[in-house]
Amino acid sequence: MKLDKFFSFLVPKDRKFFPLFNEVADNLVVASDLFIKLLGESELSKRTEYIKAIHDAEHIGDDLTRKLMNELNGTFITPFEREDIHILVDKMDSVVDLLHGASKRIHTYNLSVFPKEFMQIAVIINAAVLEIQLVLRNVKNVNDFKLYINSCIKIGNMESEVDDIYQSFLANLFENEMNAIELIKKRDILAALEKAIDRCDDVAKVFSTLIVKMG
Amino acid sequence: MKLDKFFSFLVPKDRKFFPLFNEVADNLVVASDLFIKLLGESELSKRTEYIKAIHDAEHIGDDLTRKLMNELNGTFITPFEREDIHILVDKMDSVVDLLHGASKRIHTYNLSVFPKEFMQIAVIINAAVLEIQLVLRNVKNVNDFKLYINSCIKIGNMESEVDDIYQSFLANLFENEMNAIELIKKRDILAALEKAIDRCDDVAKVFSTLIVKMG
Amino acid sequence: MKLDKFFSFLVPKDRKFFPLFNEVADNLVVASDLFIKLLGESELSKRTEYIKAIHDAEHIGDDLTRKLMNELNGTFITPFEREDIHILVDKMDSVVDLLHGASKRIHTYNLSVFPKEFMQIAVIINAAVLEIQLVLRNVKNVNDFKLYINSCIKIGNMESEVDDIYQSFLANLFENEMNAIELIKKRDILAALEKAIDRCDDVAKVFSTLIVKMG
Repeated sequence: MKLDKFFSFLVPKDRKFFPLFNEVADNLVVASDLFIKLLGESELSKRTEYIKAIHDAEHIGDDLTRKLMNELNGTFITPFEREDIHILVDKMDSVVDLLHGASKRIHTYNLSVFPKEFMQIAVIINAAVLEIQLVLRNVKNVNDFKLYINSCIKIGNMESEVDDIYQSFLANLFENEMNAIELIKKRDILAALEKAIDRCDDVAKVFSTLIVKMG
Repeated sequence: MKLDKFFSFLVPKDRKFFPLFNEVADNLVVASDLFIKLLGESELSKRTEYIKAIHDAEHIGDDLTRKLMNELNGTFITPFEREDIHILVDKMDSVVDLLHGASKRIHTYNLSVFPKEFMQIAVIINAAVLEIQLVLRNVKNVNDFKLYINSCIKIGNMESEVDDIYQSFLANLFENEMNAIELIKKRDILAALEKAIDRCDDVAKVFSTLIVKMG
Repeated sequence: MKLDKFFSFLVPKDRKFFPLFNEVADNLVVASDLFIKLLGESELSKRTEYIKAIHDAEHIGDDLTRKLMNELNGTFITPFEREDIHILVDKMDSVVDLLHGASKRIHTYNLSVFPKEFMQIAVIINAAVLEIQLVLRNVKNVNDFKLYINSCIKIGNMESEVDDIYQSFLANLFENEMNAIELIKKRDILAALEKAIDRCDDVAKVFSTLIVKMG
């Protein structure tokens, strides 16, 4: 079975779905790269620049989401495909929103030193959005289902990995951080990152659903 | 183009959509007015009355939502309109819920003095729900699209304004409030208000989507 | 009117909807029973076992949800029924997720003594999921609408009862718990339980909607 049949609703003739989805995925990767740079930066003024750039990525994401929804409304597709695409667009948008939320909190809370778990999770999120980008980029060219299933499984494992890091970080935090306000700050930021990987996993789940449906 | 065509799904013959939507908007304004009165009241017994009245508004909102949904189910409309109306009803209901949530917390946390940002944001929420009311009220009478687009833009700006107030309040709170429990209380309440204006902006976004679709 | 007409979309010929819904309800009851056992257990190693078992129930719930969604996609039903079933599946899944979330936090926060409100609410949740199980079990056999309406009303009352317990617990906590970190721990867990009963009430609301629609 050709994969462009599998993702056929993404590539109808004369429609801009497909390039728009790729733009969303690319924007996701940009936001995730910026977030890693932010965590690696110690100079305040440069941090502020990265936070601003992530904010811009969030706006770009919003615009792309709106365009996709408008395309979607002007396209004849079955309600049940519509539903999946809706979820797909929505979840991909959430990943950028959550990265933006985490970076905004870093700014608001005036956090200077980051627990190592921040970077650990940011790197995993980056790997996850690269998988999402890979899936969407290759829809037209590849005939191999296994590649997609493989990406979905990988993202699922990343989500579990982040969950483990998050839970043990929390356990540690609640045992050793005596300053409740510092505890709230760190937990808030990590909670946003943990949600971001959850949304990546939701994206992977929609991919899996589509494979089952169209397979 | 006549606007009653634009909002045609709201005003089908023999249907109660339109007056019901107006009732929801009116109830929103009532809840928002009560919330402002609550914040301006120093006497505990009167506060309790306002909190009770907001609770009543929440119940009225729930009933109206249920009625609207039942109307919706008995009406032939395309799935894609159904989706928008669903979101519209849901988001408008959320605004009242969040105002109720904020007032419930004021009660539960036994908060006596309110930071000035509470009132600042409450006033902006009030302006936003008045715009929503305006849009829904004039659907039948006005032929001018710009009026609607204008309201949507205004609400979008109000959302940004609240976000700025919220972020700088939070930054200040995390820097200066040494008592973590007081910090949690204030943040909780303001977070509910910030979500309320977000939901108003979601309502405005559905309006915008409808303008694009029907325009 | 026969109730199998009312729930006709759940029992189409050759479809597995109906037994799958029962499996979901049974799994809900299992998770809720385990949670009560967890709260009643003082020995740490046994607690860990219960937490693990609740985690397993969450996975079983995820699998059942996926199966139900796949069945749903392969079945011809109107979009508007699809919507209700979607919400039903989603909300039932959330109850298990939230019980799992609460038990995970008990583990992560290393909480040894539980406020009495934990058990009070856990017992009410148990009663609510038993009502849900009852409704779904008897769809085929019973011709009496009142039984279902009665269950929905009961669940609605349980939700109010939990809300009262939760609010007065919170008020007490914010007045008397001087240790902010302990406050966060207890509130987090109870908030998850409060959301769980909310989701039960959402399930009951879908039942009510269906009664109105099909009645």
